Amino acid sequence: MSEKISKHSSKTLVEQLMAWILRKIDQNEWPAGTKLPSQRALAELLHVNRSTVVEALDELKAEDVLESRQGSGVFVKQPFSTIYHNRPVDWRGRMTNSHVEANVHTIQLINEYETKKHVIRLGTGELSPELIPTAQLQRLMHTSYLTNIDLGYSEPKGNEALREAIVQRLKKRGIETSKDGILIVSGALQALQLISLGLLEQGSHLYFDAPSYIPSIPSLQATPLETPINRLKKGILYTVPTLNNPTGQTMNEHERIQLLQDASKRGIPIIEDDVYHDLSFESSPKALKSMDTTGQVIYISSVSKTVSPGLRIGWVVAPTPVIERLADVKMQLDYGSNALSQHIVTRLLSSDDYDDHIQQLRRELKKRADYTEHVLMTYLSHIAHWQSPKGGFYIWVTFKEPIVTKSLFLRLLKRNVLINPGYVYNPRDLYSLRISFAYCTNEQLRAGLQILAEEVSGDSPPLR
Amino acid sequence: MSEKISKHSSKTLVEQLMAWILRKIDQNEWPAGTKLPSQRALAELLHVNRSTVVEALDELKAEDVLESRQGSGVFVKQPFSTIYHNRPVDWRGRMTNSHVEANVHTIQLINEYETKKHVIRLGTGELSPELIPTAQLQRLMHTSYLTNIDLGYSEPKGNEALREAIVQRLKKRGIETSKDGILIVSGALQALQLISLGLLEQGSHLYFDAPSYIPSIPSLQATPLETPINRLKKGILYTVPTLNNPTGQTMNEHERIQLLQDASKRGIPIIEDDVYHDLSFESSPKALKSMDTTGQVIYISSVSKTVSPGLRIGWVVAPTPVIERLADVKMQLDYGSNALSQHIVTRLLSSDDYDDHIQQLRRELKKRADYTEHVLMTYLSHIAHWQSPKGGFYIWVTFKEPIVTKSLFLRLLKRNVLINPGYVYNPRDLYSLRISFAYCTNEQLRAGLQILAEEVSGDSPPLR
Repeated sequence: MSEKISKHSSKTLVEQLMAWILRKIDQNEWPAGTKLPSQRALAELLHVNRSTVVEALDELKAEDVLESRQGSGVFVKQPFSTIYHNRPVDWRGRMTNSHVEANVHTIQLINEYETKKHVIRLGTGELSPELIPTAQLQRLMHTSYLTNIDLGYSEPKGNEALREAIVQRLKKRGIETSKDGILIVSGALQALQLISLGLLEQGSHLYFDAPSYIPSIPSLQATPLETPINRLKKGILYTVPTLNNPTGQTMNEHERIQLLQDASKRGIPIIEDDVYHDLSFESSPKALKSMDTTGQVIYISSVSKTVSPGLRIGWVVAPTPVIERLADVKMQLDYGSNALSQHIVTRLLSSDDYDDHIQQLRRELKKRADYTEHVLMTYLSHIAHWQSPKGGFYIWVTFKEPIVTKSLFLRLLKRNVLINPGYVYNPRDLYSLRISFAYCTNEQLRAGLQILAEEVSGDSPPLR
Repeated sequence: MSEKISKHSSKTLVEQLMAWILRKIDQNEWPAGTKLPSQRALAELLHVNRSTVVEALDELKAEDVLESRQGSGVFVKQPFSTIYHNRPVDWRGRMTNSHVEANVHTIQLINEYETKKHVIRLGTGELSPELIPTAQLQRLMHTSYLTNIDLGYSEPKGNEALREAIVQRLKKRGIETSKDGILIVSGALQALQLISLGLLEQGSHLYFDAPSYIPSIPSLQATPLETPINRLKKGILYTVPTLNNPTGQTMNEHERIQLLQDASKRGIPIIEDDVYHDLSFESSPKALKSMDTTGQVIYISSVSKTVSPGLRIGWVVAPTPVIERLADVKMQLDYGSNALSQHIVTRLLSSDDYDDHIQQLRRELKKRADYTEHVLMTYLSHIAHWQSPKGGFYIWVTFKEPIVTKSLFLRLLKRNVLINPGYVYNPRDLYSLRISFAYCTNEQLRAGLQILAEEVSGDSPPLR
């Protein structure tokens, strides 16, 4: 990479690092006032020793390019020549006071460390690369013929053939609708954003049953459901009744009927997130949407958990006026969904290939789930408990003591093990964590869980 | 289509239509309280006479399934059996009081009529299907090999190879940055949403120079710039300095320097939308971003205008902390961009194919622009004026009288001609409209402009 530091250059490492920093400043990637990455992060990024970083930073401070601010780090200094002419943009102030909160720090770290290859990702909610049907998708790509119409802007509700294919798939789930009652979205998360923007009355809330992955999306400004639903006055309830993320639990039919009745009494809409259903190891109860007699359920699903998240294709089923409203909001956000993915997913869902893939995937996930439970038994059964998974990706492991703290999270990160701690899903929960059996190889799972066991039982080797 | 009405059925058309409506109600696509489409819309959708619709609706009213409400239309009635048990969801109230306003009515009609094949689209801001390099894109699709890593969730900033390819392209535009200073988005509109959500202080505004297409996106809550920029206290300025949408105008170098200085004095960031630059017929001034000495410019571009909007790929260039913030917000909105499109666009931008395509596209657009001006001269030169286009898609036609009203828009729609009236871009402008030479065939352009000329000069044939 041209921007990395080379040991074979005629310049010293310190000189190269200084040049690299000056280039960032000259190119305005780091304008005046920018806080530099930490010494550790710079050293890691550029594969140099920390002492090299310290020396380069000291030189640039002496040259009045950088400045230290007590207790808060190293910043790019305002060049003297511009002080009287220009006011640098106060980016940090703007970010702090903008409409959307930043992801919480733990989530940011998870997003960051998920891109590092050497990290063992014990909680990742994503199919392992080898479980993605890459060859099938590739074959579809290589045999697809797009018209130039396909490559224009999408219809507001999305590709018509895809919506027809989804109508047929929904029939198997007991849901009757037509293509007019379906909106194509860029994954289930976008569906939630559209609902939050387009259907939530000002001053009311998107409610969720904790624990839920929803609090990890601060921009949704969702709130845990703390009153019985039949006392709610307004708002919308979000739920994953089948193979919940993060707990893996499934509501039984009685609970579903009760939920629908309670919500119906108050005219409260329910968002049913059904993305894990196809990954059930055993038959699962009917979808809420299939029992909905008043049009109160908004059903969402996607191919992100079953085929590939990179396709960014999900869908929403709701009464037609609701679908039209959400389509209007989507047009305002991104002018519709991606043509290539819609075309590929249409062909996939219209063929038996999808069913074959799902059957094989279920078998593979079941094997991984069994192995993971076996390892959990070995390392953690004396201090934690969990339920055997009935499908999906997750085992929700709960310790007897409140030990799943940010400190544990960071200690594990230092040992290159990334966990999804319970407090991300429910701020009060320091007992639990989400283990995913979908992502890691067996070897990684065993190694990662062993390190976790060492850290929680306090007999870990000294930190490197 | 299974859901259409057939003349060869054993049932009468009225019976079939009644069954169709009842199915919509049973499937909860039209729950209690839903307003039905107008008689005209139903007749058009199902290819039946309006008298058939009237008869079917009357029957269903007699059966207590539907009800008329004075002056507001026909609605689905609450079934008697459920009146005491359930409260239907008040969808309409929720939509009205939600966070995002609906698109204005004219924009909704434009979105709707743009999907109808028989309509002449005089203002469409989109490449004509035959100008999209479908064969090139198809070849890339048929020769692309994805790894299963590609098909996982994207990195927050987007595909690394794509960002590298964009770094190289930006060099030709005089902009120096590294891949860390780039974020991949689903088109330029999404970039604006991310900036509005992630960088705009509460209570401040996204400003634009009217006329602009920005007011057609109500969720941005943007506001026209009415004070000189050097008096602004906060906010962010959005501008299309090269080949503006809708006017086609380009700021000269002096104006650019002035704008940068004025904004810099107040620490006001500028969003430079450069999506039309590659379509300039002659050399155009330097990008604002290439003259930016303080990191105040956020640069956005995409392949939507130059290659295909269906790919949904755009990019943002900004100081690294800004890019990281926007990437964080994007992860909250849709978990990143589409893998297939990112892969295809990487290959396209890395090859000379892109340059060849652009050269050919420019020549073709220039031919179309010349033809369009020729037709405008023929039909409208006595009552309107405009500037010869210097590239892009648009000619901004301004009449001597304020005749570009919603009434004109609707009259033209009745004659299957869709225009983009000036009031969509500036509510006070009833003089102008945006003509696009990029979309229609020559025949459609001539026919559409002739009908426009008839309507504005009042010597139109009686309405059909």
